[in-house]
Amino acid sequence: MGDKRSLTRTIRKVSSMDSRMTPDQLALEEPLEIQIAYGAPESRQWKTVAITMRTPGHDRELAAGFLVGEGLLRSLDQIEAVHSRGPHYGDEGFQHSVRVTLRPGVELDLARLERNFYTTSSCGVCGKTSLEALELSFEHVQLASDWQVDRGTICALPARLREAQAIFDKTGGLHAAGIFTPEGNPVIVREDVGRHNAVDKVIGTEFLTGRLPLSHHILVVSGRASFELMQKAVAAGIAMLVAVGAPSSLALETAEKFGATLIGFTKADSFNIYTGEQRVRLDAPALATSSS
Amino acid sequence: MGDKRSLTRTIRKVSSMDSRMTPDQLALEEPLEIQIAYGAPESRQWKTVAITMRTPGHDRELAAGFLVGEGLLRSLDQIEAVHSRGPHYGDEGFQHSVRVTLRPGVELDLARLERNFYTTSSCGVCGKTSLEALELSFEHVQLASDWQVDRGTICALPARLREAQAIFDKTGGLHAAGIFTPEGNPVIVREDVGRHNAVDKVIGTEFLTGRLPLSHHILVVSGRASFELMQKAVAAGIAMLVAVGAPSSLALETAEKFGATLIGFTKADSFNIYTGEQRVRLDAPALATSSS
Repeated sequence: MGDKRSLTRTIRKVSSMDSRMTPDQLALEEPLEIQIAYGAPESRQWKTVAITMRTPGHDRELAAGFLVGEGLLRSLDQIEAVHSRGPHYGDEGFQHSVRVTLRPGVELDLARLERNFYTTSSCGVCGKTSLEALELSFEHVQLASDWQVDRGTICALPARLREAQAIFDKTGGLHAAGIFTPEGNPVIVREDVGRHNAVDKVIGTEFLTGRLPLSHHILVVSGRASFELMQKAVAAGIAMLVAVGAPSSLALETAEKFGATLIGFTKADSFNIYTGEQRVRLDAPALATSSS
Repeated sequence: MGDKRSLTRTIRKVSSMDSRMTPDQLALEEPLEIQIAYGAPESRQWKTVAITMRTPGHDRELAAGFLVGEGLLRSLDQIEAVHSRGPHYGDEGFQHSVRVTLRPGVELDLARLERNFYTTSSCGVCGKTSLEALELSFEHVQLASDWQVDRGTICALPARLREAQAIFDKTGGLHAAGIFTPEGNPVIVREDVGRHNAVDKVIGTEFLTGRLPLSHHILVVSGRASFELMQKAVAAGIAMLVAVGAPSSLALETAEKFGATLIGFTKADSFNIYTGEQRVRLDAPALATSSS
Protein backbone atom coordinates (compact mmCIF):
# COMPACT_ATOMS: atom_id res chain seq x y z
CA MET A 1 0.00 0.00 0.00
CA GLY A 2 1.07 3.57 -0.22
CA ASP A 3 2.61 5.19 -3.24
CA LYS A 4 6.16 6.41 -3.16
CA ARG A 5 5.05 9.78 -4.47
CA SER A 6 2.22 10.32 -2.00
CA LEU A 7 1.68 10.68 1.72
CA THR A 8 -1.14 8.72 3.35
CA ARG A 9 -3.04 10.45 6.17
CA THR A 10 -6.35 10.00 7.89
CA ILE A 11 -8.54 12.97 7.07
CA ARG A 12 -12.17 13.96 7.60
CA LYS A 13 -14.41 13.82 4.53
CA VAL A 14 -17.45 16.07 4.99
CA SER A 15 -20.50 15.66 2.78
CA SER A 16 -23.99 17.11 2.93
CA MET A 17 -25.10 13.89 4.64
CA ASP A 18 -22.40 13.15 7.19
CA SER A 19 -18.70 13.26 7.89
CA ARG A 20 -16.25 10.44 8.44
CA MET A 21 -12.57 9.80 8.98
CA THR A 22 -10.89 8.01 6.09
CA PRO A 23 -7.37 7.41 4.75
CA ASP A 24 -6.38 9.76 1.94
CA GLN A 25 -3.31 10.23 -0.21
CA LEU A 26 -1.61 13.59 -0.72
CA ALA A 27 0.90 14.24 -3.46
CA LEU A 28 4.41 14.58 -2.04
CA GLU A 29 5.98 18.02 -2.21
CA GLU A 30 9.60 18.43 -1.05
CA PRO A 31 12.42 20.85 -1.93
CA LEU A 32 15.12 19.82 -4.41
CA GLU A 33 18.43 21.64 -4.65
CA ILE A 34 20.07 21.79 -8.08
CA GLN A 35 23.86 22.20 -8.10
CA ILE A 36 26.38 22.59 -10.90
CA ALA A 37 29.95 21.34 -10.34
CA TYR A 38 32.68 22.61 -12.66
CA GLY A 39 36.44 22.80 -13.14
CA ALA A 40 39.22 20.22 -13.29
CA PRO A 41 38.70 17.14 -11.07
CA GLU A 42 41.47 18.20 -8.65
CA SER A 43 40.05 21.69 -8.14
CA ARG A 44 36.36 21.16 -8.70
CA GLN A 45 33.94 23.78 -7.39
CA TRP A 46 30.18 23.74 -7.13
CA LYS A 47 27.36 26.23 -6.95
CA THR A 48 23.68 25.94 -6.03
CA VAL A 49 21.69 27.34 -8.95
CA ALA A 50 18.11 26.67 -7.85
CA ILE A 51 15.83 25.14 -5.25
CA THR A 52 12.48 23.93 -6.51
CA MET A 53 9.54 22.43 -4.61
CA ARG A 54 8.86 19.16 -6.41
CA THR A 55 7.33 15.71 -6.11
CA PRO A 56 10.29 13.38 -5.45
CA GLY A 57 11.30 10.99 -8.22
CA HIS A 58 13.14 11.50 -11.52
CA ASP A 59 15.19 14.17 -9.78
CA ARG A 60 18.24 13.86 -12.02
CA GLU A 61 16.04 14.33 -15.04
CA LEU A 62 14.36 17.33 -13.38
CA ALA A 63 17.73 18.97 -12.71
CA ALA A 64 18.98 18.39 -16.26
CA GLY A 65 15.71 19.59 -17.77
CA PHE A 66 15.74 22.72 -15.64
CA LEU A 67 19.22 23.63 -16.87
CA VAL A 68 18.21 23.01 -20.49
CA GLY A 69 15.15 25.22 -20.06
CA GLU A 70 17.27 28.05 -18.70
CA GLY A 71 19.55 27.88 -21.72
CA LEU A 72 22.52 26.68 -19.65
CA LEU A 73 22.83 23.15 -21.06
CA ARG A 74 22.60 22.54 -24.79
CA SER A 75 24.23 19.19 -25.47
CA LEU A 76 24.90 16.00 -23.58
CA ASP A 77 28.65 16.17 -24.15
CA GLN A 78 28.81 19.18 -21.82
CA ILE A 79 28.24 16.99 -18.79
CA GLU A 80 30.26 14.26 -17.11
CA ALA A 81 27.76 13.00 -14.53
CA VAL A 82 24.46 13.70 -12.79
CA HIS A 83 24.18 12.39 -9.22
CA SER A 84 21.55 12.52 -6.47
CA ARG A 85 23.12 13.56 -3.18
CA GLY A 86 22.42 14.15 0.49
CA PRO A 87 20.69 12.19 3.27
CA HIS A 88 18.03 9.65 2.35
CA TYR A 89 14.44 10.35 3.40
CA GLY A 90 11.33 8.24 3.55
CA ASP A 91 10.72 4.62 2.67
CA GLU A 92 11.91 5.19 -0.86
CA GLY A 93 15.15 6.85 0.21
CA PHE A 94 14.67 10.04 -1.75
CA GLN A 95 17.53 12.50 -1.70
CA HIS A 96 17.01 16.22 -1.93
CA SER A 97 19.98 17.46 -3.90
CA VAL A 98 21.19 16.76 -7.45
CA ARG A 99 24.66 17.70 -8.67
CA VAL A 100 25.28 18.09 -12.39
CA THR A 101 29.04 17.80 -13.02
CA LEU A 102 30.37 19.45 -16.17
CA ARG A 103 33.18 17.90 -18.20
CA PRO A 104 36.57 19.49 -17.46
CA GLY A 105 37.05 22.46 -19.75
CA VAL A 106 33.33 23.10 -20.22
CA GLU A 107 32.39 26.55 -19.05
CA LEU A 108 28.78 27.52 -18.67
CA ASP A 109 27.65 31.06 -18.28
CA LEU A 110 26.65 30.44 -14.67
CA ALA A 111 25.87 34.10 -14.17
CA ARG A 112 23.14 33.81 -16.78
CA LEU A 113 20.35 33.22 -14.28
CA GLU A 114 21.32 36.27 -12.25
CA ARG A 115 22.22 38.36 -15.25
CA ASN A 116 18.90 37.76 -16.98
CA PHE A 117 17.37 38.90 -13.74
CA TYR A 118 19.33 42.11 -13.38
CA THR A 119 19.52 42.99 -17.05
CA THR A 120 15.79 43.03 -17.35
CA SER A 121 15.32 44.87 -14.10
CA SER A 122 17.74 47.63 -15.06
CA CYS A 123 15.78 48.44 -18.20
CA GLY A 124 12.41 48.56 -16.56
CA VAL A 125 11.35 44.93 -16.95
CA CYS A 126 8.87 44.84 -19.75
CA GLY A 127 7.67 41.78 -21.62
CA LYS A 128 9.57 43.01 -24.66
CA THR A 129 12.94 43.01 -22.96
CA SER A 130 12.20 39.58 -21.50
CA LEU A 131 11.52 38.23 -24.96
CA GLU A 132 14.66 39.87 -26.31
CA ALA A 133 16.72 38.29 -23.55
CA LEU A 134 15.15 34.94 -24.39
CA GLU A 135 15.97 35.37 -28.04
CA LEU A 136 19.63 35.84 -27.15
CA SER A 137 19.57 32.73 -24.95
CA PHE A 138 17.95 30.59 -27.63
CA GLU A 139 19.29 32.08 -30.85
CA HIS A 140 20.66 28.63 -31.76
CA VAL A 141 17.14 27.13 -31.69
CA GLN A 142 15.51 26.40 -35.04
CA LEU A 143 12.03 24.94 -34.77
CA ALA A 144 11.20 22.43 -37.51
CA SER A 145 8.26 23.28 -39.78
CA ASP A 146 8.27 20.20 -42.03
CA TRP A 147 5.66 18.22 -40.12
CA GLN A 148 1.96 18.26 -39.29
CA VAL A 149 -0.45 16.74 -36.80
CA ASP A 150 -4.01 15.65 -37.61
CA ARG A 151 -6.79 17.52 -35.81
CA GLY A 152 -8.14 14.26 -34.38
CA THR A 153 -4.74 13.39 -32.95
CA ILE A 154 -4.63 16.70 -31.09
CA CYS A 155 -8.07 16.08 -29.60
CA ALA A 156 -6.89 12.68 -28.34
CA LEU A 157 -3.80 13.98 -26.53
CA PRO A 158 -5.38 15.00 -23.18
CA ALA A 159 -6.93 11.55 -22.73
CA ARG A 160 -3.67 9.85 -23.66
CA LEU A 161 -1.81 12.00 -21.16
CA ARG A 162 -4.27 11.02 -18.43
CA GLU A 163 -4.03 7.33 -19.37
CA ALA A 164 -0.28 7.51 -18.87
CA GLN A 165 -0.60 9.04 -15.40
CA ALA A 166 -0.34 6.38 -12.76
CA ILE A 167 -0.94 8.48 -9.68
CA PHE A 168 -3.36 11.12 -10.91
CA ASP A 169 -6.59 9.46 -9.86
CA LYS A 170 -5.35 8.82 -6.34
CA THR A 171 -4.44 12.30 -5.20
CA GLY A 172 -5.89 14.54 -7.91
CA GLY A 173 -3.03 16.83 -7.02
CA LEU A 174 -0.51 16.37 -9.77
CA HIS A 175 0.22 18.20 -12.98
CA ALA A 176 1.34 16.10 -15.93
CA ALA A 177 3.54 16.74 -18.94
CA GLY A 178 4.25 14.42 -21.83
CA ILE A 179 6.28 14.26 -25.03
CA PHE A 180 4.26 12.78 -27.89
CA THR A 181 5.03 11.88 -31.50
CA PRO A 182 3.13 13.62 -34.34
CA GLU A 183 1.00 10.46 -34.51
CA GLY A 184 -0.05 11.00 -30.89
CA ASN A 185 1.99 8.24 -29.28
CA PRO A 186 3.51 8.98 -25.87
CA VAL A 187 7.32 8.99 -25.67
CA ILE A 188 7.50 9.93 -21.98
CA VAL A 189 5.05 11.26 -19.38
CA ARG A 190 5.92 12.66 -15.93
CA GLU A 191 3.96 14.20 -13.07
CA ASP A 192 4.68 16.71 -10.34
CA VAL A 193 2.98 19.09 -7.91
CA GLY A 194 4.61 21.83 -10.01
CA ARG A 195 3.73 21.95 -13.68
CA HIS A 196 7.15 23.43 -14.56
CA ASN A 197 8.81 20.47 -12.81
CA ALA A 198 6.76 17.96 -14.81
CA VAL A 199 7.98 19.65 -18.01
CA ASP A 200 11.58 19.70 -16.76
CA LYS A 201 11.36 15.97 -16.00
CA VAL A 202 10.24 14.98 -19.50
CA ILE A 203 12.70 17.30 -21.27
CA GLY A 204 15.52 16.26 -18.93
CA THR A 205 14.87 12.58 -19.65
CA GLU A 206 15.15 13.15 -23.36
CA PHE A 207 18.24 15.33 -22.90
CA LEU A 208 20.05 12.71 -20.79
CA THR A 209 19.48 10.06 -23.45
CA GLY A 210 20.82 12.34 -26.18
CA ARG A 211 17.53 12.93 -27.97
CA LEU A 212 17.44 16.73 -28.02
CA PRO A 213 16.42 18.74 -29.98
CA LEU A 214 12.92 17.24 -30.02
CA SER A 215 12.31 18.76 -33.41
CA HIS A 216 9.41 16.51 -34.43
CA HIS A 217 7.58 16.13 -31.13
CA ILE A 218 4.66 17.65 -29.23
CA LEU A 219 4.79 18.79 -25.59
CA VAL A 220 1.42 18.21 -23.87
CA VAL A 221 0.63 19.79 -20.48
CA SER A 222 -2.35 19.13 -18.24
CA GLY A 223 -2.86 22.72 -17.12
CA ARG A 224 -2.39 26.22 -18.42
CA ALA A 225 0.32 27.33 -20.84
CA SER A 226 2.45 30.05 -19.26
CA PHE A 227 5.45 31.93 -20.62
CA GLU A 228 7.70 29.64 -18.59
CA LEU A 229 6.38 26.44 -20.20
CA MET A 230 6.60 27.92 -23.69
CA GLN A 231 10.21 28.93 -22.95
CA LYS A 232 11.05 25.37 -21.88
CA ALA A 233 9.51 23.94 -25.07
CA VAL A 234 11.52 26.33 -27.26
CA ALA A 235 14.73 25.52 -25.37
CA ALA A 236 14.24 21.83 -26.19
CA GLY A 237 13.54 22.56 -29.85
CA ILE A 238 9.88 21.53 -29.48
CA ALA A 239 7.75 23.30 -32.08
CA MET A 240 4.29 22.47 -30.68
CA LEU A 241 2.84 23.00 -27.20
CA VAL A 242 -0.63 21.56 -26.55
CA ALA A 243 -2.25 22.67 -23.27
CA VAL A 244 -5.47 21.40 -21.73
CA GLY A 245 -5.97 24.85 -20.18
CA ALA A 246 -5.62 28.46 -21.26
CA PRO A 247 -2.44 30.08 -22.57
CA SER A 248 -1.24 33.44 -21.29
CA SER A 249 -0.49 36.48 -23.45
CA LEU A 250 3.26 36.07 -23.02
CA ALA A 251 3.13 32.35 -23.87
CA LEU A 252 1.50 33.37 -27.17
CA GLU A 253 3.99 36.17 -27.83
CA THR A 254 6.88 33.78 -27.14
CA ALA A 255 5.42 31.18 -29.51
CA GLU A 256 5.03 33.87 -32.19
CA LYS A 257 8.61 35.07 -31.76
CA PHE A 258 10.05 31.58 -32.20
CA GLY A 259 7.56 30.37 -34.80
CA ALA A 260 6.14 27.66 -32.54
CA THR A 261 2.60 26.27 -32.57
CA LEU A 262 0.53 27.00 -29.46
CA ILE A 263 -2.74 25.13 -28.84
CA GLY A 264 -4.98 25.57 -25.79
CA PHE A 265 -8.33 24.51 -24.30
CA THR A 266 -7.78 21.09 -25.84
CA LYS A 267 -10.82 18.83 -25.47
CA ALA A 268 -11.97 15.54 -26.97
CA ASP A 269 -13.79 17.36 -29.77
CA SER A 270 -12.29 20.85 -29.96
CA PHE A 271 -9.25 23.03 -29.39
CA ASN A 272 -7.96 26.54 -30.09
CA ILE A 273 -4.94 27.28 -32.28
CA TYR A 274 -3.34 30.50 -31.03
CA THR A 275 -0.46 30.60 -33.49
CA GLY A 276 1.46 28.34 -35.88
CA GLU A 277 -1.51 26.63 -37.52
CA GLN A 278 0.65 25.43 -40.44
CA ARG A 279 1.57 22.42 -38.30
CA VAL A 280 -2.07 21.33 -37.90
CA ARG A 281 -3.69 19.28 -40.69
CA LEU A 282 -7.11 20.88 -40.59
CA ASP A 283 -8.51 18.93 -43.55
CA ALA A 284 -7.77 15.59 -41.90
CA PRO A 285 -10.85 13.61 -40.88
CA ALA A 286 -12.10 14.35 -37.38
CA LEU A 287 -11.43 11.80 -34.69
CA ALA A 288 -13.89 8.90 -34.73
CA THR A 289 -16.17 9.39 -31.73
CA SER A 290 -16.87 5.71 -31.20
CA SER A 291 -14.92 2.55 -32.02
CA SER A 292 -14.91 0.91 -35.47
CA MET B 1 -14.15 46.44 -25.69
CA GLY B 2 -11.09 44.68 -24.43
CA ASP B 3 -10.22 44.15 -20.83
CA LYS B 4 -7.21 45.79 -19.31
CA ARG B 5 -6.03 42.47 -17.97
CA SER B 6 -6.37 40.53 -21.20
CA LEU B 7 -4.99 40.55 -24.73
CA THR B 8 -7.42 40.20 -27.64
CA ARG B 9 -6.23 38.15 -30.62
CA THR B 10 -7.86 36.44 -33.55
CA ILE B 11 -7.38 32.72 -33.16
CA ARG B 12 -8.64 29.57 -34.88
CA LYS B 13 -11.25 27.56 -32.99
CA VAL B 14 -11.32 23.96 -34.19
CA SER B 15 -14.28 21.72 -33.45
CA SER B 16 -15.29 18.28 -34.70
CA MET B 17 -17.55 20.02 -37.23
CA ASP B 18 -15.46 22.85 -38.61
CA SER B 19 -12.91 25.48 -37.79
CA ARG B 20 -13.23 29.26 -37.81
CA MET B 21 -11.27 32.38 -37.01
CA THR B 22 -12.66 34.31 -34.05
CA PRO B 23 -11.52 36.96 -31.55
CA ASP B 24 -10.36 35.56 -28.23
CA GLN B 25 -9.03 37.01 -25.00
CA LEU B 26 -5.86 35.80 -23.30
CA ALA B 27 -4.97 36.63 -19.72
CA LEU B 28 -2.10 39.13 -19.60
CA GLU B 29 1.19 37.82 -18.24
CA GLU B 30 4.10 40.27 -17.82
CA PRO B 31 7.12 40.44 -15.51
CA LEU B 32 7.03 42.61 -12.39
CA GLU B 33 10.19 43.64 -10.57
CA ILE B 34 9.93 44.09 -6.79
CA GLN B 35 12.46 46.49 -5.23
CA ILE B 36 13.15 47.50 -1.66
CA ALA B 37 14.63 50.97 -0.99
CA TYR B 38 16.24 51.61 2.39
CA GLY B 39 18.39 54.04 4.34
CA ALA B 40 18.19 57.75 5.08
CA PRO B 41 16.59 59.90 2.34
CA GLU B 42 19.93 61.52 1.41
CA SER B 43 21.72 58.21 1.01
CA ARG B 44 18.96 55.87 -0.02
CA GLN B 45 19.86 52.59 -1.66
CA TRP B 46 17.69 50.01 -3.38
CA LYS B 47 17.82 46.37 -4.22
CA THR B 48 15.78 44.13 -6.54
CA VAL B 49 14.44 41.27 -4.43
CA ALA B 50 12.26 39.40 -6.92
CA ILE B 51 10.86 39.29 -10.42
CA THR B 52 7.53 37.54 -10.80
CA MET B 53 5.45 36.85 -13.92
CA ARG B 54 2.08 38.32 -13.12
CA THR B 55 -1.15 39.68 -14.58
CA PRO B 56 -0.77 43.49 -14.43
CA GLY B 57 -2.94 45.36 -11.93
CA HIS B 58 -2.76 45.75 -8.15
CA ASP B 59 1.00 45.64 -8.48
CA ARG B 60 1.73 47.61 -5.31
CA GLU B 61 -0.42 45.21 -3.34
CA LEU B 62 1.32 42.26 -4.99
CA ALA B 63 4.75 43.61 -4.00
CA ALA B 64 3.71 44.27 -0.41
CA GLY B 65 2.00 40.90 -0.09
CA PHE B 66 5.05 39.12 -1.48
CA LEU B 67 7.29 40.74 1.15
CA VAL B 68 4.83 39.83 3.92
CA GLY B 69 4.73 36.22 2.72
CA GLU B 70 8.52 35.99 2.79
CA GLY B 71 8.56 37.20 6.39
CA LEU B 72 10.32 40.47 5.47
CA LEU B 73 7.47 42.88 6.25
CA ARG B 74 5.45 42.51 9.44
CA SER B 75 3.80 45.85 10.08
CA LEU B 76 2.70 48.84 8.09
CA ASP B 77 4.83 51.26 10.11
CA GLN B 78 7.96 49.70 8.59
CA ILE B 79 7.25 51.33 5.24
CA GLU B 80 7.19 54.92 4.03
CA ALA B 81 5.83 54.47 0.51
CA VAL B 82 5.03 51.97 -2.23
CA HIS B 83 5.35 53.28 -5.80
CA SER B 84 4.94 51.82 -9.26
CA ARG B 85 7.89 52.77 -11.47
CA GLY B 86 9.33 52.50 -14.96
CA PRO B 87 8.00 53.09 -18.47
CA HIS B 88 4.28 52.82 -19.12
CA TYR B 89 3.04 49.98 -21.33
CA GLY B 90 -0.23 49.27 -23.06
CA ASP B 91 -3.46 51.20 -23.14
CA GLU B 92 -3.75 51.06 -19.38
CA GLY B 93 -0.23 52.37 -18.78
CA PHE B 94 0.94 49.50 -16.63
CA GLN B 95 4.39 49.81 -15.16
CA HIS B 96 6.60 46.83 -14.52
CA SER B 97 8.46 47.73 -11.36
CA VAL B 98 7.32 48.47 -7.79
CA ARG B 99 9.56 50.05 -5.18
CA VAL B 100 8.76 49.57 -1.50
CA THR B 101 10.54 52.31 0.47
CA LEU B 102 11.28 51.56 4.12
CA ARG B 103 11.07 54.24 6.79
CA PRO B 104 14.49 55.68 7.71
CA GLY B 105 15.96 53.55 10.46
CA VAL B 106 14.01 50.43 9.56
CA GLU B 107 16.33 47.58 8.74
CA LEU B 108 15.02 44.43 7.16
CA ASP B 109 16.98 41.26 6.97
CA LEU B 110 17.34 41.61 3.20
CA ALA B 111 19.66 38.62 3.08
CA ARG B 112 16.81 36.44 4.33
CA LEU B 113 15.71 35.31 0.88
CA GLU B 114 19.23 34.26 -0.04
CA ARG B 115 20.04 32.93 3.40
CA ASN B 116 16.97 30.71 3.57
CA PHE B 117 18.11 29.42 0.23
CA TYR B 118 21.68 28.65 1.25
CA THR B 119 20.94 27.53 4.78
CA THR B 120 18.63 24.84 3.60
CA SER B 121 20.91 23.83 0.77
CA SER B 122 23.91 23.45 3.04
CA CYS B 123 22.12 21.00 5.30
CA GLY B 124 20.85 18.79 2.53
CA VAL B 125 17.52 20.47 1.82
CA CYS B 126 14.89 18.31 3.37
CA GLY B 127 11.29 19.21 4.08
CA LYS B 128 12.08 19.18 7.77
CA THR B 129 14.77 21.85 7.55
CA SER B 130 12.48 23.95 5.38
CA LEU B 131 9.77 23.81 8.01
CA GLU B 132 12.27 24.66 10.74
CA ALA B 133 13.48 27.67 8.77
CA LEU B 134 9.86 28.74 8.35
CA GLU B 135 9.23 28.39 12.04
CA LEU B 136 12.08 30.80 12.74
CA SER B 137 10.74 33.30 10.20
CA PHE B 138 7.23 33.18 11.61
CA GLU B 139 7.80 32.53 15.30
CA HIS B 140 5.83 35.72 16.04
CA VAL B 141 2.72 34.32 14.35
CA GLN B 142 -0.08 33.10 16.62
CA LEU B 143 -3.07 31.71 14.77
CA ALA B 144 -6.39 32.39 16.49
CA SER B 145 -8.43 29.35 17.54
CA ASP B 146 -11.47 31.09 19.05
CA TRP B 147 -13.66 30.95 15.96
CA GLN B 148 -15.50 28.47 13.78
CA VAL B 149 -17.03 28.25 10.34
CA ASP B 150 -20.22 26.36 9.49
CA ARG B 151 -19.88 23.44 7.11
CA GLY B 152 -22.41 24.97 4.73
CA THR B 153 -20.45 28.21 4.61
CA ILE B 154 -17.33 26.33 3.53
CA CYS B 155 -19.25 24.59 0.73
CA ALA B 156 -20.44 27.99 -0.53
CA LEU B 157 -16.97 29.57 -0.72
CA PRO B 158 -15.89 28.34 -4.21
CA ALA B 159 -19.07 29.70 -5.79
CA ARG B 160 -18.67 33.00 -3.97
CA LEU B 161 -15.07 33.25 -5.16
CA ARG B 162 -16.18 32.68 -8.76
CA GLU B 163 -18.98 35.24 -8.45
CA ALA B 164 -16.42 37.82 -7.41
CA GLN B 165 -14.21 37.15 -10.42
CA ALA B 166 -14.91 39.62 -13.16
CA ILE B 167 -12.58 38.30 -15.82
CA PHE B 168 -12.66 34.58 -15.21
CA ASP B 169 -15.30 33.64 -17.72
CA LYS B 170 -13.61 35.55 -20.52
CA THR B 171 -10.19 33.95 -20.58
CA GLY B 172 -10.55 30.94 -18.34
CA GLY B 173 -6.90 31.49 -17.61
CA LEU B 174 -6.81 33.11 -14.21
CA HIS B 175 -6.34 31.79 -10.70
CA ALA B 176 -8.29 33.54 -7.95
CA ALA B 177 -7.70 34.12 -4.27
CA GLY B 178 -10.05 35.72 -1.77
CA ILE B 179 -10.19 36.73 1.87
CA PHE B 180 -13.54 35.84 3.43
CA THR B 181 -15.10 36.36 6.83
CA PRO B 182 -16.12 33.34 8.96
CA GLU B 183 -19.68 34.01 7.75
CA GLY B 184 -18.53 33.51 4.14
CA ASN B 185 -18.62 37.13 3.04
CA PRO B 186 -15.87 38.29 0.65
CA VAL B 187 -13.51 40.98 1.94
CA ILE B 188 -11.32 41.09 -1.16
CA VAL B 189 -10.83 38.89 -4.24
CA ARG B 190 -7.98 39.12 -6.77
CA GLU B 191 -6.95 37.16 -9.85
CA ASP B 192 -3.70 36.41 -11.63
CA VAL B 193 -2.09 33.99 -14.07
CA GLY B 194 -0.01 32.88 -11.07
CA ARG B 195 -1.88 31.56 -8.06
CA HIS B 196 0.85 32.80 -5.69
CA ASN B 197 0.44 36.29 -7.13
CA ALA B 198 -3.32 36.25 -6.55
CA VAL B 199 -2.65 35.39 -2.89
CA ASP B 200 0.02 38.10 -2.61
CA LYS B 201 -2.43 40.65 -4.02
CA VAL B 202 -5.16 39.94 -1.46
CA ILE B 203 -2.76 39.77 1.49
CA GLY B 204 -0.90 42.88 0.31
CA THR B 205 -4.14 44.83 0.06
CA GLU B 206 -5.02 44.00 3.64
CA PHE B 207 -1.48 44.74 4.80
CA LEU B 208 -1.41 48.17 3.13
CA THR B 209 -4.64 49.15 4.87
CA GLY B 210 -3.32 48.07 8.26
CA ARG B 211 -5.56 45.04 8.70
CA LEU B 212 -2.95 42.34 9.35
CA PRO B 213 -2.92 39.88 11.08
CA LEU B 214 -6.08 38.47 9.50
CA SER B 215 -6.70 36.39 12.58
CA HIS B 216 -10.40 35.75 11.98
CA HIS B 217 -10.48 35.29 8.23
CA ILE B 218 -10.39 32.52 5.61
CA LEU B 219 -8.11 32.45 2.57
CA VAL B 220 -9.86 30.78 -0.38
CA VAL B 221 -7.90 29.71 -3.49
CA SER B 222 -9.26 28.46 -6.81
CA GLY B 223 -6.61 25.81 -7.40
CA ARG B 224 -4.38 23.49 -5.43
CA ALA B 225 -2.91 24.21 -2.00
CA SER B 226 0.88 24.10 -2.13
CA PHE B 227 3.45 24.69 0.60
CA GLU B 228 3.97 28.19 -0.76
CA LEU B 229 0.31 29.20 -0.37
CA MET B 230 0.11 27.73 3.14
CA GLN B 231 3.26 29.70 4.05
CA LYS B 232 1.68 32.93 2.79
CA ALA B 233 -1.47 32.29 4.83
CA VAL B 234 0.54 31.68 8.00
CA ALA B 235 2.62 34.83 7.41
CA ALA B 236 -0.58 36.90 7.32
CA GLY B 237 -1.92 35.25 10.49
CA ILE B 238 -4.67 33.47 8.54
CA ALA B 239 -5.71 30.30 10.36
CA MET B 240 -7.81 28.68 7.61
CA LEU B 241 -6.93 27.88 3.99
CA VAL B 242 -9.77 26.56 1.81
CA ALA B 243 -8.68 25.21 -1.59
CA VAL B 244 -10.88 24.10 -4.47
CA GLY B 245 -8.16 21.62 -5.46
CA ALA B 246 -5.84 19.19 -3.72
CA PRO B 247 -3.31 20.07 -1.03
CA SER B 248 0.27 18.82 -1.15
CA SER B 249 2.02 16.87 1.61
CA LEU B 250 4.12 19.88 2.61
CA ALA B 251 1.10 22.19 2.71
CA LEU B 252 -0.45 19.78 5.22
CA GLU B 253 2.75 19.49 7.28
CA THR B 254 3.06 23.28 7.37
CA ALA B 255 -0.56 23.65 8.50
CA GLU B 256 0.04 21.07 11.24
CA LYS B 257 3.19 22.83 12.44
CA PHE B 258 1.43 26.18 12.82
CA GLY B 259 -1.92 24.81 13.98
CA ALA B 260 -3.79 26.06 10.91
CA THR B 261 -6.89 24.54 9.33
CA LEU B 262 -6.40 23.12 5.81
CA ILE B 263 -9.41 22.21 3.67
CA GLY B 264 -9.26 20.86 0.11
CA PHE B 265 -11.40 19.49 -2.73
CA THR B 266 -14.08 21.97 -1.69
CA LYS B 267 -17.32 21.47 -3.62
CA ALA B 268 -20.93 22.68 -3.26
CA ASP B 269 -21.82 19.66 -1.13
CA SER B 270 -18.56 18.26 0.24
CA PHE B 271 -14.98 18.99 1.29
CA ASN B 272 -12.02 17.37 3.01
CA ILE B 273 -10.54 18.59 6.30
CA TYR B 274 -6.85 17.69 6.34
CA THR B 275 -6.02 19.22 9.71
CA GLY B 276 -7.40 21.73 12.22
CA GLU B 277 -11.02 20.56 12.27
CA GLN B 278 -11.69 22.41 15.54
CA ARG B 279 -12.42 25.50 13.44
CA VAL B 280 -15.21 23.75 11.48
CA ARG B 281 -18.70 23.56 13.03
CA LEU B 282 -19.58 20.06 11.90
CA ASP B 283 -22.91 19.91 13.71
CA ALA B 284 -24.19 23.03 11.96
CA PRO B 285 -27.04 22.41 9.53
CA ALA B 286 -25.94 21.63 5.98
CA LEU B 287 -26.29 24.36 3.39
CA ALA B 288 -29.84 24.71 2.12
CA THR B 289 -29.86 23.41 -1.43
CA SER B 290 -32.69 25.64 -2.60
CA SER B 291 -33.85 29.10 -1.57
CA SER B 292 -35.95 30.07 1.49
